[in-house]
Amino acid sequence: MFADRLMESIKKKGNPSVLGLDPRPGMIPRCIRDVHGEDLGRTVFEFNKALIDSVADLVPAVKLQIAFYEALGLEGLRAYRETADYAKERGLLVIGDIKRGDISSTAEAYRDAHLFGHFRCDAVTLNPFLGYDSVEPFLKACSRDGKGVFILVKTSNPSSGDLQNLKVGDEYLYQYLAGKVAEWGRDLLGKYGYSSVGAVVGATYPGELKVLRRVMSHTPLLLPGYGAQGAGGSDVAAAFDDKGLGAVVNSSRALAGAYLRAEKPECVTVEEFKKYTRDEALRMRDDITDAIKNRDINMQGECQS
Amino acid sequence: MFADRLMESIKKKGNPSVLGLDPRPGMIPRCIRDVHGEDLGRTVFEFNKALIDSVADLVPAVKLQIAFYEALGLEGLRAYRETADYAKERGLLVIGDIKRGDISSTAEAYRDAHLFGHFRCDAVTLNPFLGYDSVEPFLKACSRDGKGVFILVKTSNPSSGDLQNLKVGDEYLYQYLAGKVAEWGRDLLGKYGYSSVGAVVGATYPGELKVLRRVMSHTPLLLPGYGAQGAGGSDVAAAFDDKGLGAVVNSSRALAGAYLRAEKPECVTVEEFKKYTRDEALRMRDDITDAIKNRDINMQGECQS
Repeated sequence: MFADRLMESIKKKGNPSVLGLDPRPGMIPRCIRDVHGEDLGRTVFEFNKALIDSVADLVPAVKLQIAFYEALGLEGLRAYRETADYAKERGLLVIGDIKRGDISSTAEAYRDAHLFGHFRCDAVTLNPFLGYDSVEPFLKACSRDGKGVFILVKTSNPSSGDLQNLKVGDEYLYQYLAGKVAEWGRDLLGKYGYSSVGAVVGATYPGELKVLRRVMSHTPLLLPGYGAQGAGGSDVAAAFDDKGLGAVVNSSRALAGAYLRAEKPECVTVEEFKKYTRDEALRMRDDITDAIKNRDINMQGECQS
Repeated sequence: MFADRLMESIKKKGNPSVLGLDPRPGMIPRCIRDVHGEDLGRTVFEFNKALIDSVADLVPAVKLQIAFYEALGLEGLRAYRETADYAKERGLLVIGDIKRGDISSTAEAYRDAHLFGHFRCDAVTLNPFLGYDSVEPFLKACSRDGKGVFILVKTSNPSSGDLQNLKVGDEYLYQYLAGKVAEWGRDLLGKYGYSSVGAVVGATYPGELKVLRRVMSHTPLLLPGYGAQGAGGSDVAAAFDDKGLGAVVNSSRALAGAYLRAEKPECVTVEEFKKYTRDEALRMRDDITDAIKNRDINMQGECQS
């Protein structure tokens, strides 16, 4: 099942980082851009391949934000598929960041498209605004076919509170929703105690994250917002259990753009590009795993005092 | 601007119906399926073309549910684009039912993809769960480029109440959201008094529709749920102003599947298929326009008594 595959991979690699593959054409280094000329689909795939190759032994999963591929039309979507397939070949789990949400017959079409059809992700993100029947077709894919979902609960963007922080009775909407997500995933627990029904919680809201971790104690969390959006290791540490499991942290721009720190970014070679990415991935891994360790030490201190 | 183009087209055609183009492969009649063999993209396009040709003089707009195209992979998405382009050629407005919603840099990528890039719709549907900054890039496209949006407020599906009918203070979430949508569209009013920022309200919830029409008096409403999902003319009448403007009603399955009423559906010709579709479109138009007229007569009765 998806939850076990994810936890095993985090454990094996000692790293809960996810490589975000959001190909902004302006961020693709010249050494890759110049090779394939006008073939943007191929350029995007080669860019992603270089990123995957640089960290495949370090990270458990990749996350593809489909908007950046849709923005490039059919050749972008071809690169989306090829990237997903290549990441799988390299032993990585593939999360399609599609944030779909629609009425049930349409949700079935999205499920077929993104989990079983042309695009074969291991898990996808979902928007819960339409309620249970928009999610239910995906839950079947989790139980029958070993797929996973991450349902938006508290997103990382500045306006996320507009709806998500509305007061519903005594709690915030995101808390109410967290209860629903925990309930929807209750029958899908794996051997590490986590469900294949996960939740998206922005690393940019560490206070909310602590609350949500308690409400969703068996829910794997996908945490965007690390790096370019401003969050660091100490912001995400509360998401993990004492074995360092239970969550993954995504970084896209900070990894793909690590080479921009070079003195002359326009002159880096593919090998140098990979080295910058890998160094940033190692820094990110250590930042997060150290933050988890320090959290445990601080918690022990609290108990002793 | 989008709002004016939509209202003018409804007025000119005397019809607020929208042709929904949701190509379920199982619904494509044999006379179209058999011609193009294995080329599913071409088959889908020809199916859509037959539907468009049968009602192009009757309806102001088409709505394409992108999920059904994504389910067919790249060839499906090619058909999506070709269908949108063809509908435009035939003078119809094109609404991309994409229900996207994401953080601002990603929302920009979606906007570029679906309004200006490979897919050039006149308007798209949006999911507001991420709040204002997820919608804002699209509002710019409305004011600068004459595009339109329809933001989900109360969806047509059975579970839509899970989140949308939560009580937020003294009102339901959908009412709160309606206020926001009205506010976001306030500076984008056209000469008919309607904004280019519209809302999606399910025709399957006529009670909520009446309330929402009052909260969003300048907001064009896109009403799904007519026909196969169960709603009829009397359910949608309250959405229209006394000139019969202010809303559009979508029907997909009832139009594309009208030919299934034939004695031997598997034997219908393309011309017969078009005739069934056109007859259903005429019935739908009359059903809705009659319901608006009857509503006005009933209201006069109420005033006189």
